Amino acid sequence: MQAIFFLVALALQQEQALPASSNVSGSEYPAVDADRRVTFRLKAPNALRVEVRCRGSLWGGKPVPLAKASDGTWSVTTEPAEPGFFYYEFIIDGVPVNDPGSRTFPGWAREMSGLEVPDRSVDFYDVKPVPHGEVRVRTYFSKTTETTRQALVYTPPDYDRDPARRYPVLYLQHGSGESERSWTQQGRANYILDNLIAEGKAEEMIVVMEQGYATKAGAPPAPGARGNEGFEALVVSDLVPMIDAVYRTIPKSESRAIAGLSMGGGQAVRIGLGHPQLFGSVGSLSGGAAAARAEGAAPLLSKMQLVWIGCGRQDAGYERARDAHRDLEKAGVAHCWFETDGGHEWQVWRKSLHDLAPRLFRNK
Amino acid sequence: MQAIFFLVALALQQEQALPASSNVSGSEYPAVDADRRVTFRLKAPNALRVEVRCRGSLWGGKPVPLAKASDGTWSVTTEPAEPGFFYYEFIIDGVPVNDPGSRTFPGWAREMSGLEVPDRSVDFYDVKPVPHGEVRVRTYFSKTTETTRQALVYTPPDYDRDPARRYPVLYLQHGSGESERSWTQQGRANYILDNLIAEGKAEEMIVVMEQGYATKAGAPPAPGARGNEGFEALVVSDLVPMIDAVYRTIPKSESRAIAGLSMGGGQAVRIGLGHPQLFGSVGSLSGGAAAARAEGAAPLLSKMQLVWIGCGRQDAGYERARDAHRDLEKAGVAHCWFETDGGHEWQVWRKSLHDLAPRLFRNK
Repeated sequence: MQAIFFLVALALQQEQALPASSNVSGSEYPAVDADRRVTFRLKAPNALRVEVRCRGSLWGGKPVPLAKASDGTWSVTTEPAEPGFFYYEFIIDGVPVNDPGSRTFPGWAREMSGLEVPDRSVDFYDVKPVPHGEVRVRTYFSKTTETTRQALVYTPPDYDRDPARRYPVLYLQHGSGESERSWTQQGRANYILDNLIAEGKAEEMIVVMEQGYATKAGAPPAPGARGNEGFEALVVSDLVPMIDAVYRTIPKSESRAIAGLSMGGGQAVRIGLGHPQLFGSVGSLSGGAAAARAEGAAPLLSKMQLVWIGCGRQDAGYERARDAHRDLEKAGVAHCWFETDGGHEWQVWRKSLHDLAPRLFRNK
Repeated sequence: MQAIFFLVALALQQEQALPASSNVSGSEYPAVDADRRVTFRLKAPNALRVEVRCRGSLWGGKPVPLAKASDGTWSVTTEPAEPGFFYYEFIIDGVPVNDPGSRTFPGWAREMSGLEVPDRSVDFYDVKPVPHGEVRVRTYFSKTTETTRQALVYTPPDYDRDPARRYPVLYLQHGSGESERSWTQQGRANYILDNLIAEGKAEEMIVVMEQGYATKAGAPPAPGARGNEGFEALVVSDLVPMIDAVYRTIPKSESRAIAGLSMGGGQAVRIGLGHPQLFGSVGSLSGGAAAARAEGAAPLLSKMQLVWIGCGRQDAGYERARDAHRDLEKAGVAHCWFETDGGHEWQVWRKSLHDLAPRLFRNK
C-alpha cells in the first residue's frame, strides 16, 4: 500500500516537471519540477564530458556534470533551484556553448541560454488578463556616436487611445554585458508595469531602454568595444531630445527619472546628478553606491524628488549599497532603501522595479 | 616591385575583413573580407574536431573543417560566400552548437547563429537616413489557442504624427522553424518598408507578423509542438479583429493582404483564398504553389486584387512555383511572377518583399 502511494507520488512529481517557460517553443528540456529541480538534457554522442553551469548563484556557480545514456543523450536533474531567471551554459569537452533547447537572452556580452524558474510566492511579473502596453523598437541616429541605434520604448496601455495625453518617462538601464532588450526579455519590465498600472499602483509612464554602451565618434574603440564613455553625452544630447520629440512626454525634470541595475545603476546616478535640469529622480539597483557616496553627491541627491537605492542581501555589493543608504540617512537625505533576499540577479531587479515604479512621478 | 604591389594588395584585402554585422557587439569573428571570404574562429582547446556548417547553400551545406592553433583557437577562412543572410553552426566533436560571436536568429526551431554577408549590388534593406517606422511588440489573448501571444506590428513613420489617418495592412508570415521575429531580424522588413515609403514607391502600410504555429485549445499537441492547424482560425477570429481594434487600419478586404514565405506562403494562399471577405491580395514567396494550383483556386485567385508568386531560381521548389505561374497564365488569371537568382534563403525573400510591397494597395 505504501509502495503504491510512493509510486503515485513519484508519478505525480514527475508529471509536474514542465518545460521551462524560457525554452524555445516545442523544447521539453530544461524541465522544472514542483520542487524546482531542473532536468537538463543534450544529445552529444561523441562528447567525452558534458556539464551545465549557471552564470550566477545556482549550484554555487559550479559546473554540474551530466551523465551519458547508451543513446548518446546526456542528462542530469539538479538540486532545487532558487526561483527567478538565470543565465546558464553547457560545457562540452571544455567549450562553453548554448543549450539549443533554450531561448537566448542578451547577457555576458553575448546571447546566453536562460532558465526561468517559477516563483509561486509572487505573481507581479506574470502575463495577466489586463490591458497591455507595447514595447516599440525605435530606430534613431545618434550624433554622439554617429551611428544608427535602437531604443526600446514601453508605451502604457492607453497611449494610443488618448492622443492628447502626455506621460512621464523612466529611463531604465541594464547591467554590464546585457543590452537594451534585457529589461523586457529577462526583467519582464513591460508586464510589471502593465500589472502595476492595471491595479492603479503606478502612474502610467513611458519606459525607455537603450544599450548603455556608446563610443563617441572618432574616439578609439574601448577594450572589448563595449565602452560607455559616450553614454552620458548620448543620453543628454541624443536620446532624451529624440524621445521628447517622438513621444508624448511631459518634458520636465519632475516627470523624468533615470534608473539602472549594476553598471546601469552607476550610470543612472552619475547622469541623474550631473543633469538635474533633466532628471528629477534616480534609482540605483544593485550598483551605483560609489556614485551615490561620491563627494558632493549628497547635496544634489537631497534636491531630488525621489532617490531609490536597493540591493539583494546575498549580492557581493550588498554592504556597499547598505553603507550608501546609511550615509544618506546620516546626512539627512530623504531616500528609499529596498533590500530583499537574492543575489546579483534578475529576480532582485524585477522586485526592485516593482518597488520603485509605484513611487515615481507621484508629486506632480 | 610586383611583389610589393602584391603585399600591399594582400594587406589591404586583409584590412578589409570586417566583423559581420550579424555579430554580437564587440565580437571580431566571423569576419567577411572584400571578396566575401568568411573567417570563423572559436576557442576550444580540448576539442578534437571543429567544423562550421551553413544551414543553407553556402559551401554546399557541408561542414567545413577548422584548423587548430597551438593556443587552442580553431579557425578557417572559407571560399567566397554568396551575399545575404545564412544560418550556421559550429560542430564541436559532432555536436552542433551556436557561435558565441554571433547574434541569434529564430530559425530551425531554435535560436540559430546567423551570418550577414554584404551585398554591394543592392542597398534597399540598408538602414538609411530616412524616417523610420516602429516595430511594436503587441501582447494579446487568443481565444483559439487560449493562450497569450505576441504579434510584431510595423507601423509606418508617420503613424503617430497623424492620429486621424488609417492604413492598409499586410499580414506577413515566416517559414517553418522561424518565428514572428524572423521577418524583421533576418528579413529586415521594417527597413525595406522605410526605404520604399521614403522613396514614394510603396503605400504607407501596417505590417503584422505573427508566429504561424497555433494549436487549438484542447487539441492534442502537434508533433514537435509546432503544428499550425489552428493558425487559420487564429488569424480570422483573433488576429485580424485585434489588429483592427487596436490600430488605425482600413478594415476592408481591398486594404488587407496576406503573404508569406515557404510554409508561410502556403498559409497565405489558403487563408487568403478561404476568406476573400477579409483579404484582397495574396503573396506566395518560395512556397504555396500547391495551394495556388489546388482545384478551385484559379477562379478565386482571378477575383483577387493582387496575386504575387515568386521564387529563387536555385530553390528546390523553383519549378513547382514556375509551374503554378504558368498554370495561372494559361487560365488567364492576372498575377505577378517574380524570379531572381538565389536559393531557399532570405536574400530572395528580401528581394521578394521589395518587389511585392510597392504593388500592394495601389487600386484603392
